[in-house]
Amino acid sequence: MPELRREPITGRWVIISTERRNRPSSYVTVPRNKEASMCPFCPGNESHTPPEVLAYREAGSEPDRPGWHLRVISNKYPALKVEGTLDRAPHGIYDQMNGVGAHEVIIETPEHAHDMVDMTDNEVRNVLWSYRERMTDLERDLRFKHIIVFKNYGEAAGSSLEHSHSQLIATPIVPMRIVEEVAGARRYYDFKERCIFCDVIRQELSDQERIIRDHDAFVAYMPYASRFPFEACIIPKAHQSSYLEMSDAEYLTLARCLKDTLLRLKMALNNPPFNYVLHTRPLVRECTEYYHWHFEIIPRLTKMAGFEWGTGFYINPTAPEEAAAFLRNIDTSQYGTSK
Amino acid sequence: MPELRREPITGRWVIISTERRNRPSSYVTVPRNKEASMCPFCPGNESHTPPEVLAYREAGSEPDRPGWHLRVISNKYPALKVEGTLDRAPHGIYDQMNGVGAHEVIIETPEHAHDMVDMTDNEVRNVLWSYRERMTDLERDLRFKHIIVFKNYGEAAGSSLEHSHSQLIATPIVPMRIVEEVAGARRYYDFKERCIFCDVIRQELSDQERIIRDHDAFVAYMPYASRFPFEACIIPKAHQSSYLEMSDAEYLTLARCLKDTLLRLKMALNNPPFNYVLHTRPLVRECTEYYHWHFEIIPRLTKMAGFEWGTGFYINPTAPEEAAAFLRNIDTSQYGTSK
Repeated sequence: MPELRREPITGRWVIISTERRNRPSSYVTVPRNKEASMCPFCPGNESHTPPEVLAYREAGSEPDRPGWHLRVISNKYPALKVEGTLDRAPHGIYDQMNGVGAHEVIIETPEHAHDMVDMTDNEVRNVLWSYRERMTDLERDLRFKHIIVFKNYGEAAGSSLEHSHSQLIATPIVPMRIVEEVAGARRYYDFKERCIFCDVIRQELSDQERIIRDHDAFVAYMPYASRFPFEACIIPKAHQSSYLEMSDAEYLTLARCLKDTLLRLKMALNNPPFNYVLHTRPLVRECTEYYHWHFEIIPRLTKMAGFEWGTGFYINPTAPEEAAAFLRNIDTSQYGTSK
Repeated sequence: MPELRREPITGRWVIISTERRNRPSSYVTVPRNKEASMCPFCPGNESHTPPEVLAYREAGSEPDRPGWHLRVISNKYPALKVEGTLDRAPHGIYDQMNGVGAHEVIIETPEHAHDMVDMTDNEVRNVLWSYRERMTDLERDLRFKHIIVFKNYGEAAGSSLEHSHSQLIATPIVPMRIVEEVAGARRYYDFKERCIFCDVIRQELSDQERIIRDHDAFVAYMPYASRFPFEACIIPKAHQSSYLEMSDAEYLTLARCLKDTLLRLKMALNNPPFNYVLHTRPLVRECTEYYHWHFEIIPRLTKMAGFEWGTGFYINPTAPEEAAAFLRNIDTSQYGTSK
């Protein structure tokens, strides 16, 4: 069973994972196998993955067989396990609980070589819709306090399989960054009785210089205090605390916005590794009025993270205004023409 | 002038650096030059660095000339600049100030090929002593609220020059991680009237299973809720809130402890890239009773950081108990014998 341990000073919970266990000696050499081999996410190889928990598939096709457009499965090497109870317990002055949670993989397309930017708008919309379906299902489990959806793209961003996929983790605690965001948004709300994210959107739309592109109900921009070069944010303009508050039609608009942003990053930066993370309201409902869901997108361009890890103090060598202007000038209609 | 910008939701300050400016287009290709070339940190090349602010050198040798054992210089590409005033100002709803601070480089040895583990105990002690001297000097500047000393070792850990060196940054704000530690230590102190770090040390010495080695006045151990594989901590057993509270003799003991820990990591993990960061009390003195200085050492073994960056939620695939046992079993007397 994976174990959740609480860092006693700051209160940060950490997953000590036993399923994806690395023996100390495994770090001595780099064992990554770069050879092309069987892809467990390709159609026909369904038996190499855990059974699907959700699939969009052709009428008449069978579960865990080809004929799907999108598949959601449990992670074969989950960071958290879905069975069991939390069993919070002390360990001397320390605190721990069982690593209970859900860890799922969204296989976004049957096409091995297709990135999200190669998919149709509707295919991307279906990926975003599958997030919604899985979140809605997992929300009912009272052991969970938060659900994180994220994507690792490229080996340097932590991806071990190149077939396009995202991941979802439902956790029995609220991750530290979300706790900090909720607390900060609360302070602002107590002071002004306004959502700080709504005020940020107003300022960004007024300043314009950090906007990547305006997409009707959504806007893609680079945060004023970006921690990383080309860090981007996608946010709904209307106040919505949870990803699940979107109207059905908005998932397609969001798909266009996300695809456009990723395509600009890909074209501008020569297909960089990146991570995106969906920040949505914790499953407790207190923060509905002052929290505001959004996607954080972080291209992995610099190696300066050690100092930053140790201090939480970031040095960003590229102003977001410059990075945003660079992305605005990309002509996305040229994608693929020089291939 | 570099600029400090405040992330409006969590209150995290970020340095938008102009001196080490990276144009957006500079990320498209990886320009790192791997060829051996002139090392500005080697004796004889002093004219290629800013003038020294401190040096330990042979009697009769001249400043900025060979004859030194250790040199401290201003960083040629500083993240913060020492001249000027903070000029805190709003930018709409955002907050900024000038990037005022000191950014220095400690060139630890004249020997280009010597890592810290190749130095004598006394040489390492002199490095630790130079941190003290520079911190004592910079503390008098009332614009500064905190001083961070850190080391990036290896390219993957953010080091651009291989000649052994550390860095020091004096900042007009307290970095987020230190703020969190101080706040957490304060909560515990309010509850128990004891230093939480002192209680952690007691528990670690009692449990033993996460101890790397006990060095009289210091102990090297792996934190219970380690975020990263082989994350290590070095801490004085006696309560000291600031690095500057050590007795003169303790710098030599600390040198032996630091060198031993780094040597075990080097031998166990085949010379991994790593970062260490000195966490010491902010320059305001309120937290003297409940803060406790320490070194954090983070080997850079995994690439899982993107998700972690986005959420502050860490998945550690190696239990600290296993990692500590692995390091305890290293026979450091064998270092260099197989070369």
